[in-house]
Amino acid sequence: MKIKIFTTGGTIDKIYFDQKSEFQIGDPQIVEVLKGANVTLDYEVSSLLRKDSLDLTDADRIRIHDAVSADSCRRFVITHGTDTMIQTAQALGDISGKVIVLTGAMQPARFRMTDAVFNIASAVTAVQLLSEGVYIAMNGRIFRPDRARKNVAMNRFEDLPETL
Amino acid sequence: MKIKIFTTGGTIDKIYFDQKSEFQIGDPQIVEVLKGANVTLDYEVSSLLRKDSLDLTDADRIRIHDAVSADSCRRFVITHGTDTMIQTAQALGDISGKVIVLTGAMQPARFRMTDAVFNIASAVTAVQLLSEGVYIAMNGRIFRPDRARKNVAMNRFEDLPETL
Amino acid sequence: MKIKIFTTGGTIDKIYFDQKSEFQIGDPQIVEVLKGANVTLDYEVSSLLRKDSLDLTDADRIRIHDAVSADSCRRFVITHGTDTMIQTAQALGDISGKVIVLTGAMQPARFRMTDAVFNIASAVTAVQLLSEGVYIAMNGRIFRPDRARKNVAMNRFEDLPETL
Amino acid sequence: MKIKIFTTGGTIDKIYFDQKSEFQIGDPQIVEVLKGANVTLDYEVSSLLRKDSLDLTDADRIRIHDAVSADSCRRFVITHGTDTMIQTAQALGDISGKVIVLTGAMQPARFRMTDAVFNIASAVTAVQLLSEGVYIAMNGRIFRPDRARKNVAMNRFEDLPETL
Repeated sequence: MKIKIFTTGGTIDKIYFDQKSEFQIGDPQIVEVLKGANVTLDYEVSSLLRKDSLDLTDADRIRIHDAVSADSCRRFVITHGTDTMIQTAQALGDISGKVIVLTGAMQPARFRMTDAVFNIASAVTAVQLLSEGVYIAMNGRIFRPDRARKNVAMNRFEDLPETL
Repeated sequence: MKIKIFTTGGTIDKIYFDQKSEFQIGDPQIVEVLKGANVTLDYEVSSLLRKDSLDLTDADRIRIHDAVSADSCRRFVITHGTDTMIQTAQALGDISGKVIVLTGAMQPARFRMTDAVFNIASAVTAVQLLSEGVYIAMNGRIFRPDRARKNVAMNRFEDLPETL
Repeated sequence: MKIKIFTTGGTIDKIYFDQKSEFQIGDPQIVEVLKGANVTLDYEVSSLLRKDSLDLTDADRIRIHDAVSADSCRRFVITHGTDTMIQTAQALGDISGKVIVLTGAMQPARFRMTDAVFNIASAVTAVQLLSEGVYIAMNGRIFRPDRARKNVAMNRFEDLPETL
Repeated sequence: MKIKIFTTGGTIDKIYFDQKSEFQIGDPQIVEVLKGANVTLDYEVSSLLRKDSLDLTDADRIRIHDAVSADSCRRFVITHGTDTMIQTAQALGDISGKVIVLTGAMQPARFRMTDAVFNIASAVTAVQLLSEGVYIAMNGRIFRPDRARKNVAMNRFEDLPETL
């Protein structure tokens, strides 16, 4: 079973760039994480973008969409900033015949205390077990994008409240 | 959805005890891992044993078996030494109506470079998606115990070779 | 021998604040570092400021100066941003009878790969061995502020080149 | 100023060897630590031994002694197990014209929470500032071997109590 991994930026890959006293998006960390855990899956990583998800444009989302739909692979993990992860997930909703799991992190993978490793593992595991569709793996849970939201104040993803 | 977590020892929880120049099995690390990743699942952790899996006896396996079967919960993650994880998994094979995922680590969770976080995340995610049965989550993959083995030399779990 | 530690901010204490997609200066990390290394010295930590050193004003430097000179303690470690550490060190040059060592970090202490622990240890050790004066502990070396500079491109402190 | 570093084993360099369910002494970590902190000193590392310090023999101590005395370098850091660090330090007491600082760690450098980085930094800094003699750098302090002991129960080095 092969998994295609696309990285698009986000907090998960941020580094601290001392010369400019700021955080920037660095090289994707997912390969280090998978190797560090001795993951024996057949996977391939491709860096599509390096953006904060608040800066993603419609053109960027089309690019992500086309990268997935044009690929003959069936299972995809996409690392993405958490701010607009749901939006991108929804933009992939019309792709059939594929299992797509988006994940990211609230704390950069390069931090000592980070959710990055956990979330990557969650997404990589989920993508092997789920049936076709688009999902979000955050906070140890799997969400359908249409039924989830990012609760910024509480720093987590959760189910949309039930609506009448 | 509630998950019951049982810890039984193994490398995943080993600590270095300087006074005796040796490793010992310390307090289970899984709660730190789940909190560190801001996991929002409803879970409960219970420490059943603190043993190297090579030291587990039949009585120990019966104890693990009974803890699972007597529990009204449906979904279980069991952290366990990797050496006899498959054996314990097989001993749980007669329990119906439950989803049971065993995991562990080749490097202690307290190490800077460890597979512990990844494996815990993998197991916690898989137990929410799998149907009833017993499984092993290691190296980023989900195995059926009857079709897996631990390849000690290569430091990983893998499928049993096809037999004629 | 008692050591007084003043924290003033800088990269060493930066955290990633996801809600604002930016870094901020968080709680000083030096106590965690000293406890984590089981440092048995008699020390006291006081947080004077939480600023990037590029944002320090003359009033801030006077504040640091007065905190040191008014304190009956003889030995001081000051954690500080690296950009203007030399400037602050020079502003302390008129204080007699005290050993003052400034240090900081190029990568936040909360990162997995950081120079923070090393630099704190270097400063805390140096302040016990040096005679009165003001010094900078960075990159494993001890510098006199008047004979050092921060080489931003190379990300390190070094001796000023010899001048005729 | 050049520093010669000799590694002799000890807890500081222990690794977990899963195949044998035990800790072994692995490749010396000091170079990783010095590089990770961007230490700009001129140093050279030589691995003399890989032993628990409880297993060091007189022949081993002679070997360490001769490596130091035969070397034209003036400043030495020796990483060593903590159990008999004082004993080895005392065996080097007759070497004149050199500054020798021994250090080690209670928790392996490969652990997430370790005193290794702190202690290495302390020793590397102290060796540049001290005058000739043999010293121990542990717990943030510099000890003369004849006036120190390892308090095993409290997991730290301390001054010998004053004797009448």
